[in-house]
Amino acid sequence: MSADIVVVGATGAVGLEVLSILAARGVAAARVRGVASDRSAGKPVPYGPNATITVEPLADSSLAGARCAIFATDAAVSRAWCPKAVGAGAVVIDNSSAFRMDRDVSLVVPEINGDELAAGESHRARIIANPNCSAAILLMALDPLRRAFGVEGVVVATYQAVSGAGIAAMDELRTQTSRVLAGENASPSVFHEPIAFNLFSHDSAVDPESGLNGEERKIIDECRKIWGDPGLRVTPTCVRVPVLRAHTQAATVTLRTPATIDALRGAYDGAKGVRVIDDRAANRFPTPLKAAGVDDVLVGRLRPDPCERADPDGRLRTFCLLIAGDQLRKGAALNAVQIADALGLVR
Amino acid sequence: MSADIVVVGATGAVGLEVLSILAARGVAAARVRGVASDRSAGKPVPYGPNATITVEPLADSSLAGARCAIFATDAAVSRAWCPKAVGAGAVVIDNSSAFRMDRDVSLVVPEINGDELAAGESHRARIIANPNCSAAILLMALDPLRRAFGVEGVVVATYQAVSGAGIAAMDELRTQTSRVLAGENASPSVFHEPIAFNLFSHDSAVDPESGLNGEERKIIDECRKIWGDPGLRVTPTCVRVPVLRAHTQAATVTLRTPATIDALRGAYDGAKGVRVIDDRAANRFPTPLKAAGVDDVLVGRLRPDPCERADPDGRLRTFCLLIAGDQLRKGAALNAVQIADALGLVR
Repeated sequence: MSADIVVVGATGAVGLEVLSILAARGVAAARVRGVASDRSAGKPVPYGPNATITVEPLADSSLAGARCAIFATDAAVSRAWCPKAVGAGAVVIDNSSAFRMDRDVSLVVPEINGDELAAGESHRARIIANPNCSAAILLMALDPLRRAFGVEGVVVATYQAVSGAGIAAMDELRTQTSRVLAGENASPSVFHEPIAFNLFSHDSAVDPESGLNGEERKIIDECRKIWGDPGLRVTPTCVRVPVLRAHTQAATVTLRTPATIDALRGAYDGAKGVRVIDDRAANRFPTPLKAAGVDDVLVGRLRPDPCERADPDGRLRTFCLLIAGDQLRKGAALNAVQIADALGLVR
Repeated sequence: MSADIVVVGATGAVGLEVLSILAARGVAAARVRGVASDRSAGKPVPYGPNATITVEPLADSSLAGARCAIFATDAAVSRAWCPKAVGAGAVVIDNSSAFRMDRDVSLVVPEINGDELAAGESHRARIIANPNCSAAILLMALDPLRRAFGVEGVVVATYQAVSGAGIAAMDELRTQTSRVLAGENASPSVFHEPIAFNLFSHDSAVDPESGLNGEERKIIDECRKIWGDPGLRVTPTCVRVPVLRAHTQAATVTLRTPATIDALRGAYDGAKGVRVIDDRAANRFPTPLKAAGVDDVLVGRLRPDPCERADPDGRLRTFCLLIAGDQLRKGAALNAVQIADALGLVR
């Protein structure tokens, strides 16, 4: 069988995770081509626990014959190469921000707006965009509330893992931390600030006019697009923390119709891809370590805004919650493979 | 000269910082008695870079002759011993939560409500309470805005250093991180969750009814008391992060009267104890490393809520900001020494 699934950016943190998920789903290695920059060509990358595939350089020939191309590349590479993959006959799932806000491109979290795939809308451009990790994790956590009560707005502070900045950032966190523990000086290289035992406002560029950084802008725009709600209020603050691969978020959400805390909890019953961890007595709630390597987005610390007075039936509109989700899985690779699966491209 | 300043809890993270600040202010070592539990008695503790003092055990005799007793102890010890220090003739500055909400006790951040000390109100109980670290840092950052525009409410997510849980917690962060980097298993001991490359909802107990943890309750109650505004809206989420000694906060503040972003910046001109670090072009903002060991609370990322429409004059009511302050200094020891200083007890 010739390769019909191409993973572009196969040596990066997200690309490696895509390969791992495909292997775990039983997709034969022979069906998968791993593609990366020239400097990685010829290298083996793991395909599941027991196999490797050899990386091919990104070129027109490496896209030939693909039915499905999953791009785990930066926006510039995606902008240049996704159209070529479409030209070669593939449906493209792009993890970068290059096409997310294009009118013709669907931006999809399958559990939320997977119907856009079924309706074939995504085929207009033959490119489906995979959302920003923070947006995907936040919406997974809030979607059961939107379905039950509507969501008017959310104030969210993020605690973002370094994996979002790639393997080099994960290495920098480890090596810089070792150096600091050894009493040495650790000057940052990948990031603009030290990351060992430190945190900082997200490393994406800050818009001089609005004061928003790129990550915050993406969360606002993408949440509105995925939910189809251009008036949605999203007030984010994005912060990078010394954690390896799962994002955490503190969210204060305002519903459209008031709810009791019990009804709020009930909204998560049977919700797919979300798991509630909310043990007040034991002080056990979502953490990035619990979310790492896990498909579900974790939700907990569900509680009413302490400053809103409930109505006589105990209902109010504003609640707080803590969210944790694996940046590399639901925040990136898993969601991309789920899209491919929904389109029948990996079976 | 006999000792007239007693520091109780002198071997703890806050007590050591109190000694360091007193020494830096030129208070002679002979004036300072360091007191701690029996198990630390006889040990030397640093008093400035070149001196030590010998720890005495906590007993009635160790309080004798004190004009000023600074307690850096837990609430149970403070509840038992602060009244004895008052009985021995001292004015007590207590860093614990034991007396903070007592009607007769002033809860003071000198830059904000130091007039309570001048007015002698604090002498009613001869105990002055030092606020919770997160409350003190948050109010320092917001007080210039309150003075200029009034503050109706704030939604705040904290990124709290482990120093708030004491020296053992700081040690646990270091040793657990070393073990994880060495590929070993690291089971938590001080905290209920792993702290190395992880974070978790604050380790204070969670109220089964409200769902608030103890730290969140303190922030709400203490901000209202210090500002004398029982209707203030405070919606906090408190999270512990793998950082050693400075707290960070992402705050979304709603003003009483609308302001432009320029007026907001202007409110910080000349404000004491607060410094603005807000370089959008260079992506330089407050971080816990920048705040560590520093007296000023750092404020930055000042920006309008992206979802609020400004009026025709460019004014709006909701703004976001990022705050960092040293938990051991303005969050604890520095504020306590400033109170003692305002009362004329350390000169």
